[in-house]
Amino acid sequence: MLKQNHLPGPVPHLLEERVDLQEQSAPSRYAQVPCSTQVSAEDAAARWRALPDSEKQREVLLDAQTVEHISYFQGNIENFIGTVKVPVGLAGPLRVNGSFAQGDYSIPLATTEAALVASYHRGSLLISEAGGCSALLLDEGVGRAPGFAFRTLREAKLFADWVYGQWEALQQAADSTTRYGRLIDMRAMIEGNHVYLHFVFNPADAAGQNMVTIATEAICSYILQHCPLKSDYFFVEANFSSDKKASAQSLQAVRGRKVSAEVVIPAELVRERLHTTPERMADFYRMGSLGAVLSGTVGVQGHFANGLAALYIACGQDVACVAESAVGVTRFEITEHGALYAAVTLPNLIVGTVGGGTGLPAQHACLDILRLAGPGHARALAEVCAGVCLAGEISLVAALCAGHFTRAHQRLARERATSVEEARHD
Amino acid sequence: MLKQNHLPGPVPHLLEERVDLQEQSAPSRYAQVPCSTQVSAEDAAARWRALPDSEKQREVLLDAQTVEHISYFQGNIENFIGTVKVPVGLAGPLRVNGSFAQGDYSIPLATTEAALVASYHRGSLLISEAGGCSALLLDEGVGRAPGFAFRTLREAKLFADWVYGQWEALQQAADSTTRYGRLIDMRAMIEGNHVYLHFVFNPADAAGQNMVTIATEAICSYILQHCPLKSDYFFVEANFSSDKKASAQSLQAVRGRKVSAEVVIPAELVRERLHTTPERMADFYRMGSLGAVLSGTVGVQGHFANGLAALYIACGQDVACVAESAVGVTRFEITEHGALYAAVTLPNLIVGTVGGGTGLPAQHACLDILRLAGPGHARALAEVCAGVCLAGEISLVAALCAGHFTRAHQRLARERATSVEEARHD
Amino acid sequence: MLKQNHLPGPVPHLLEERVDLQEQSAPSRYAQVPCSTQVSAEDAAARWRALPDSEKQREVLLDAQTVEHISYFQGNIENFIGTVKVPVGLAGPLRVNGSFAQGDYSIPLATTEAALVASYHRGSLLISEAGGCSALLLDEGVGRAPGFAFRTLREAKLFADWVYGQWEALQQAADSTTRYGRLIDMRAMIEGNHVYLHFVFNPADAAGQNMVTIATEAICSYILQHCPLKSDYFFVEANFSSDKKASAQSLQAVRGRKVSAEVVIPAELVRERLHTTPERMADFYRMGSLGAVLSGTVGVQGHFANGLAALYIACGQDVACVAESAVGVTRFEITEHGALYAAVTLPNLIVGTVGGGTGLPAQHACLDILRLAGPGHARALAEVCAGVCLAGEISLVAALCAGHFTRAHQRLARERATSVEEARHD
Amino acid sequence: MLKQNHLPGPVPHLLEERVDLQEQSAPSRYAQVPCSTQVSAEDAAARWRALPDSEKQREVLLDAQTVEHISYFQGNIENFIGTVKVPVGLAGPLRVNGSFAQGDYSIPLATTEAALVASYHRGSLLISEAGGCSALLLDEGVGRAPGFAFRTLREAKLFADWVYGQWEALQQAADSTTRYGRLIDMRAMIEGNHVYLHFVFNPADAAGQNMVTIATEAICSYILQHCPLKSDYFFVEANFSSDKKASAQSLQAVRGRKVSAEVVIPAELVRERLHTTPERMADFYRMGSLGAVLSGTVGVQGHFANGLAALYIACGQDVACVAESAVGVTRFEITEHGALYAAVTLPNLIVGTVGGGTGLPAQHACLDILRLAGPGHARALAEVCAGVCLAGEISLVAALCAGHFTRAHQRLARERATSVEEARHD
Repeated sequence: MLKQNHLPGPVPHLLEERVDLQEQSAPSRYAQVPCSTQVSAEDAAARWRALPDSEKQREVLLDAQTVEHISYFQGNIENFIGTVKVPVGLAGPLRVNGSFAQGDYSIPLATTEAALVASYHRGSLLISEAGGCSALLLDEGVGRAPGFAFRTLREAKLFADWVYGQWEALQQAADSTTRYGRLIDMRAMIEGNHVYLHFVFNPADAAGQNMVTIATEAICSYILQHCPLKSDYFFVEANFSSDKKASAQSLQAVRGRKVSAEVVIPAELVRERLHTTPERMADFYRMGSLGAVLSGTVGVQGHFANGLAALYIACGQDVACVAESAVGVTRFEITEHGALYAAVTLPNLIVGTVGGGTGLPAQHACLDILRLAGPGHARALAEVCAGVCLAGEISLVAALCAGHFTRAHQRLARERATSVEEARHD
Repeated sequence: MLKQNHLPGPVPHLLEERVDLQEQSAPSRYAQVPCSTQVSAEDAAARWRALPDSEKQREVLLDAQTVEHISYFQGNIENFIGTVKVPVGLAGPLRVNGSFAQGDYSIPLATTEAALVASYHRGSLLISEAGGCSALLLDEGVGRAPGFAFRTLREAKLFADWVYGQWEALQQAADSTTRYGRLIDMRAMIEGNHVYLHFVFNPADAAGQNMVTIATEAICSYILQHCPLKSDYFFVEANFSSDKKASAQSLQAVRGRKVSAEVVIPAELVRERLHTTPERMADFYRMGSLGAVLSGTVGVQGHFANGLAALYIACGQDVACVAESAVGVTRFEITEHGALYAAVTLPNLIVGTVGGGTGLPAQHACLDILRLAGPGHARALAEVCAGVCLAGEISLVAALCAGHFTRAHQRLARERATSVEEARHD
Repeated sequence: MLKQNHLPGPVPHLLEERVDLQEQSAPSRYAQVPCSTQVSAEDAAARWRALPDSEKQREVLLDAQTVEHISYFQGNIENFIGTVKVPVGLAGPLRVNGSFAQGDYSIPLATTEAALVASYHRGSLLISEAGGCSALLLDEGVGRAPGFAFRTLREAKLFADWVYGQWEALQQAADSTTRYGRLIDMRAMIEGNHVYLHFVFNPADAAGQNMVTIATEAICSYILQHCPLKSDYFFVEANFSSDKKASAQSLQAVRGRKVSAEVVIPAELVRERLHTTPERMADFYRMGSLGAVLSGTVGVQGHFANGLAALYIACGQDVACVAESAVGVTRFEITEHGALYAAVTLPNLIVGTVGGGTGLPAQHACLDILRLAGPGHARALAEVCAGVCLAGEISLVAALCAGHFTRAHQRLARERATSVEEARHD
Repeated sequence: MLKQNHLPGPVPHLLEERVDLQEQSAPSRYAQVPCSTQVSAEDAAARWRALPDSEKQREVLLDAQTVEHISYFQGNIENFIGTVKVPVGLAGPLRVNGSFAQGDYSIPLATTEAALVASYHRGSLLISEAGGCSALLLDEGVGRAPGFAFRTLREAKLFADWVYGQWEALQQAADSTTRYGRLIDMRAMIEGNHVYLHFVFNPADAAGQNMVTIATEAICSYILQHCPLKSDYFFVEANFSSDKKASAQSLQAVRGRKVSAEVVIPAELVRERLHTTPERMADFYRMGSLGAVLSGTVGVQGHFANGLAALYIACGQDVACVAESAVGVTRFEITEHGALYAAVTLPNLIVGTVGGGTGLPAQHACLDILRLAGPGHARALAEVCAGVCLAGEISLVAALCAGHFTRAHQRLARERATSVEEARHD
């Protein structure tokens, strides 16, 4: 018989007679969440009252510290009901010899996944023991890509030509909206009678996504007012900027900040600390990178997502950007002296040290642990991110080479099972 | 002059004389984080003592509730120092007419990004007002892909043939490690003298990644013991399973759970609630999907990542999996009656209602709000995820069509700026 | 100034006043090509008469041998006017130790690109000198993917379930159209209220694309007649089968025939024949495969397209299929004895030894040179294709390593320049 | 049982005892093809003598006209043994309202695939009847991408910075090798201690691939001589230029020439000539483009490869470039007046009207039919290519919508079967 899908049995509710979707789901009355951008204890309490039997949940989410800090959350959340607590572990110190990040960093990682912090910790210590990793900010820029529809290809081309001629005016339009980000690049992609404009801005110390949206709106206003060619319609973003999406385009260019980091680990250290050899790790790399190619990933890497998600949650970054930030390439090889050379390149690090969630108390505290809170530290934070990913790749691959990978998951999962049971039944 | 990169000036520290990396970073002494998988107040305190001038940070991260709940974190974190608090907003209710999810759901979203909850809230209410979205679990399965290296292509083929013949034995080997997940599928990918085996397991109620690693290790042990052909080396994962990576392979198959969700929104509702028209939203979709294609994304979608990251953080899911879960396709079109048809398909939802962070107090509370905590709810959670993403796509695209997108960011960001200033200076 | 595009100056005709496309190109009278599927000297002559001043061209295209063979072309071309002559060079012999191809093959390559035959010749001889390459047919199947649109996701799922239940009936429907190909696999991809069905057929000795279209039409007729669920519309191909397109899906599965080929070249042979070392070739491979990954190719390979296009033209294959056939992966590494290990894997070889252009006189002659004309040889031809690509990869990479690459092009291009000049002015 | 692969039975020769590859294929003696770049009747005859029982094949490949034209082939082929004859059909006329191509073009298409010419013919006539297609050259440039390996990331960055500073000198180095192509752009991609330099040249009237290789070699020589930083090794091409490969990078930029073409077809013409409606074609487009996205193609298109391969063979282009040229996007939509809007965008057209095979007699004759032979016509040829692809997309999709697709293949294939039988048995 043919393999239909992986479901063990027939999907319930599917084999009934054909029913009309709209009929079946005729609107009934439901309690609506009281909606507001206002963050206050009263508002939150009102929302909890609308949730039946939620007393216990309310206590957990709307705890004393959350109430105490409640005013901080204004502007970061709507329909506020409390906070979720994500445990933080400390990895490192990780020594980074970067252009901006220089020194030993203790890395706060917020995750609920067993073994994650332990793995990054091991990689970080090893890198530090080997003298630290080199890290270089290679590029920066955040884009927005409005789209314009015209009647004809000819008009689309005339429009693109006109826009190129307005460069200074567009920069001024953008400048009027922000003290920080600057319009630094632009290109037009013509597809039939459509034109995608890709505007790139300097993100300054922020992740920059809101700033570039506002600046691009100003640019579009200028264009709509001054361009003799009128578009049939336009959108301030036409899904061409790869916002929160892994894309080949962003892999090749930059989205946020692009950083490369590298380290050389002597063979003895690989053997002593990782219980494998540079040769076996290079074997893994060769087989693993073709594995990635055959499965059609964007770039070739192991687990950038693990470290980035944990660091982004801890430090108040936009966690959805893991979708794009986890893209990049890793390379392992053997040096002529038999050591392990390891490098990572991450072109889409969307990080900032101001704005977003960076000002919330716990997130700010995590940035403080890194000594990277506030203006002037975004580039260093990006270099630290690359160093953390490098630590993760080395530790992960070594675990796969030494056969530790499974055992680590097994042991830690069992520990949890036991201790959680105990905790529950206390 | 050529555009070298987007950096405003020369990168500092780069134009110095050539220095040797190893020399420059000669290992100095640094304080190491006391390392332990033990989660306790004493261990945490010891770690904080190792961080200079961290009193204020400690207070924020290691607050009273965190200390009270400390035993819960055991097995979810190593080198524990406290918790980071992520604000939670409530969207909905969202009506889902699914195979497993049926009813009105209040959606807890943990994020620090302004406007995110408001946007999902708007989309959820609209879907509910239109009678709810249909949602169907289409497939499920989580994979691991060990790789084996042989001397020759011929051996690789003989090995693959042998493994196919051991199906029942491999299932037994896997069964010996887990009461829940079952080995349900397998295939071999031969590349020269390398063989990637892709094992797919039923994830049951968990996200399943640890379970499949342990089961695959058992399978590999069986293979190594019984196969007459000896591989030169093997890895329990050869980077072919797309774990925490967007990939074309997972887009086409399943990784975790695959769900499609759809809704029909009458034109009047689009006009009244979204201030645009189905036609303009279809225009956006056509331009936006080619925008995505031209930029080389995996699938075509708007912002799956936003909603998924927020829901995953709130509900104790593995947030790094946003890297793969945010992949899928969206489709908008006009029905023959002029209504908006909208559908999303997400083949890589890595969600569970047991294991991972689902048992932590706040995360469990969020699952409770969804009435989806504990065994038996993972499939419904996956259908809810798809519904949430559908709500997000509709709201986002409508905002782009109506020109609200920028204004929402602008207003909320300003509110934050003001209120945070006030909060800071209190 | 911004870099607008790479055009040296403004595009002519663009800066005129805005004109209406339809106006500008108001239909004028033009001579139409006399249209016919009939291939005959009279028809061809009539077409030539419609082309002004084409006497010289006619003589070249409609030469004596073409007229003599004219009846052969019936059914391979419409609106016939003659033949274009593509020069053929012979590479090899290439020794292939395959499952189906076994022995030494002289490879006819039809190309107009200097250095191509010489490079494949060099690689083929080297492989033969090393004892030949191993080659294994790993899979075969050619697909068609009709698409069906329903009113709802629920209907789409019910339809897919129904179709899975009709497997034997669908096979019979397909069988009724062809003595050769058999329906061997199927899967349904649901996306909202759309269903893509992917049918895979055994290609037998043909490339199989026409056969599968006809069989799929018969399957669709059966479905339309018997399925209680009626689709709003359907297409016999919904662009999901990757026909004549490089795709991630076909890279992972099979389209046509999938073959892997490998060879081990001792270090001395690499030095003597290729003037480089296995180590340098492995260096290239590491840098080159990341180069491919960064540029976003499908798979990782050097120049499969060169050899395949030349072999496909010579042997009457469907040359447009180079678009998909040139996809695959190459791997180079050093064996423990210091030799070069090289392997190629090509999952999309669309080749046949009957049908298409294989019966035309010159193309049949080229298949005869390979001793692979007529029924029973398609699998061997696929293995030979993989061997040829392996030869090309080795020769190309060695040329890049030894610095010969440019010099070969330079010298041969100069030779041509000189000799063509002479030929012209004779 | 598990589905192992699509092969009907066990692969022969595989289940034997394990044998050593090198042993099995111990080198025996084989006749080597007499190798030479010299094209002459004597050389060809010598090669034929080395092929056993090849008299009949020789007559077909080395016919009178081929011998007569033999001197033309010098420099386009090595190891010459004759020519393969590919039948040519004429499509059109196709009216192109381009920047460079202006007028009605009769399109020579060389193919052995039934129905191909008929389909392009139908599309071309329809476009002409609708007033012709608009076509615009949007960009041009051909790249080469040498790679350089350094000891450290820091050196890689210093090297890239140094190279950017040498722009004028690099242009001079390139100029010294060619009168035609000019170095017009450059960028450096740093990945760890590796640097890929991507040099883009103006292709002038040629396809340009040989020219850019020679110019890049000169550039590399300059760099090696003058750069104070010494690379460990370098390659004149590091597989980053997407030469003869579909790639996301080339889709977004340009490789060769980038052209967009569009046409508006009134609804009446769609109904009368194509027997379908603009609405149904837009339905197909929506389903077909998601089909392409789900299967992971580069861009979204139907059958660019068919028309391009046939035109490239006819006109002496580098046919292997179909691998990259067949990449691009198609868009169909309904205009506000109910007509069909159709557009194609092809960013990787590798075409020239001098060099390559353009000077061979038959190929030159085909360019003459287009009135595009010789210098000054490459851009027009590119615009014609886009027009041809547009014609093909419209005709193909209409056939799928009207259900003609299969019937056309069925009928023509039967005609061939019959007539070939007759021809054979004459």
